[in-house]
Amino acid sequence: MDKQDRPRRPTISDVAAAAGVSPKTVSRVINNEPGVRAELADQVLAAVSKLGFRRNTMASSLRSGGQTATIGLIIEDLANPFYSTIAATVANIARTHDTHLITVSSEENPELEQRQFLQLCQRRVDGMIIVPAGSDHSYTRPEVEMGMRMVFLDRPPSGILADSVVIDNAAGARAGIVDLLKDGHRRIGVVIDSPVIYTARERLAGVRSALAEAGIPYDDALVRVGVTNPDEAAHAVATMLDGVDPPTAFFTGNNRSTIGAIQELYRRDSDAALLGFDDFELATLMPRPLTVIAYDVQELGRAATLRLFERIGGDTSWPSETVIPTHLVQRGVQLLKS
Amino acid sequence: MDKQDRPRRPTISDVAAAAGVSPKTVSRVINNEPGVRAELADQVLAAVSKLGFRRNTMASSLRSGGQTATIGLIIEDLANPFYSTIAATVANIARTHDTHLITVSSEENPELEQRQFLQLCQRRVDGMIIVPAGSDHSYTRPEVEMGMRMVFLDRPPSGILADSVVIDNAAGARAGIVDLLKDGHRRIGVVIDSPVIYTARERLAGVRSALAEAGIPYDDALVRVGVTNPDEAAHAVATMLDGVDPPTAFFTGNNRSTIGAIQELYRRDSDAALLGFDDFELATLMPRPLTVIAYDVQELGRAATLRLFERIGGDTSWPSETVIPTHLVQRGVQLLKS
Repeated sequence: MDKQDRPRRPTISDVAAAAGVSPKTVSRVINNEPGVRAELADQVLAAVSKLGFRRNTMASSLRSGGQTATIGLIIEDLANPFYSTIAATVANIARTHDTHLITVSSEENPELEQRQFLQLCQRRVDGMIIVPAGSDHSYTRPEVEMGMRMVFLDRPPSGILADSVVIDNAAGARAGIVDLLKDGHRRIGVVIDSPVIYTARERLAGVRSALAEAGIPYDDALVRVGVTNPDEAAHAVATMLDGVDPPTAFFTGNNRSTIGAIQELYRRDSDAALLGFDDFELATLMPRPLTVIAYDVQELGRAATLRLFERIGGDTSWPSETVIPTHLVQRGVQLLKS
Repeated sequence: MDKQDRPRRPTISDVAAAAGVSPKTVSRVINNEPGVRAELADQVLAAVSKLGFRRNTMASSLRSGGQTATIGLIIEDLANPFYSTIAATVANIARTHDTHLITVSSEENPELEQRQFLQLCQRRVDGMIIVPAGSDHSYTRPEVEMGMRMVFLDRPPSGILADSVVIDNAAGARAGIVDLLKDGHRRIGVVIDSPVIYTARERLAGVRSALAEAGIPYDDALVRVGVTNPDEAAHAVATMLDGVDPPTAFFTGNNRSTIGAIQELYRRDSDAALLGFDDFELATLMPRPLTVIAYDVQELGRAATLRLFERIGGDTSWPSETVIPTHLVQRGVQLLKS
């Protein structure tokens, strides 16, 4: 369709002309301002309806210096079920506040996170929920000082004070290891992400604390860090099982590592116990038993979003940290037959 | 922090005052317009840097009537891995076009889909990708006539002509059934969503076409429609296995039904063959063998997004339908040991 043929989107001026009133009057009616005579308001509304005028929400809110009714969410990777569940939760709560959500992926890259933060500021989002990739968030200070609200999710920020919502990582890992120790395990292989990452660092600390309390010396042959995907986890498990005095149990630091461990343990028909941080939907159909350290992912997203809307609403209280509790759950397909 | 204490975000006027130039000059420098003396431009840039001025992207683009550098994505449910993979793909491509993505969930509700469509129009997104929940999209016509670009994904629209990107549903289902027939199966249970839904309708048509060609009469005791979640699928499989002359194989119409079927078949130690539409990440760890009808989900998202950006870029060609091919893949944990 040729550009000249396309109907032009009606403007406030068009409505004013059609209604026989001034553009200022149209504007006041659209914005529900008081002081417009009822019959004029009716004329305006009739013209609006007839012309199919749809107020440009963005333009109006920016002209009046109001909120954009958008919030931003910076996460690692939308294709990861942990993050997509969080995004879904955040979007649903935002909708109840008539707010839209823009989700961006930082891919664990601090530079990308910073660029996206600044881009979201440029588009004047009302606030942001951030799963930090970087370890220094002082770059956010100028925007925070000018009114940008932020809540950090899953990992706290560094270099600034802000609200955060995190999982009880260390305590959860600790409780899981205590459970393995109760079953008599002494050699426990640990497969985890880089300690540069807060969640991995905390979980490793929980593991080490439980082992230390049980008098089990730290053996770095039983610890593989920097594991970021299932294949690396499978490889780590294989190496440890092929080593001297192999572990009789494994702790995997997140669901990606758990999956790799299941692959390798199943392939070898291994009896080793498996304890993994993070529940996941198909854990109930995994081909061998495992224990997961579970928590309510939706609650993580919900707590962060509600906090953000409190801030957007004008809450200026001191930054808070909300901790989401964990619990142990048995998983694996053998449970279907018991 | 008290509102009065908060630094006001610097405006073009502030920059002009700091640089000793007119606001018009500042505007021209910010917008990279030609004709500004180099030394004046330097003064402006120095003031911008010093004041921490960040151009309000949204306000600028709307004032000039330009694009908002945002696109919308309407899907069923962000927590479903099929949709989150698509959202991740769309967001990544959008980023290469310096565009942000707003994702909204319609929850298969046509009214909600319509409301969200109109809300996205109100915020002047440059275009939208829509997985339709409804069966009548004539409501979009006024907006399309005024320039809104749309690409439909996974299901075509009704009541309007628009680009669409769909999976080769009927052919994929057909090929899967032909494969089961080759293995000697004659009684095949079908577990599928409502035929009101395009993908379910097409897949069922493919199944029926393959059975008809093999001379197998349609037996509606072997077809359960309206199945929307794993538990319903498990129940459907159980009912059919408990019936007279039970099926020796099952076809499940999507990954949610496949999961329910796996649960039930595993629980009963059933030898029945399982053919499911949709691959999924943990299909490789499922506790019993299955065949999946697979396709490239990212390609689905990619094709739709690229088409949308062609439209945003001014392409006015006749609407196209892109069909994503399928192929059969063996899954299940037994493959790890073969």
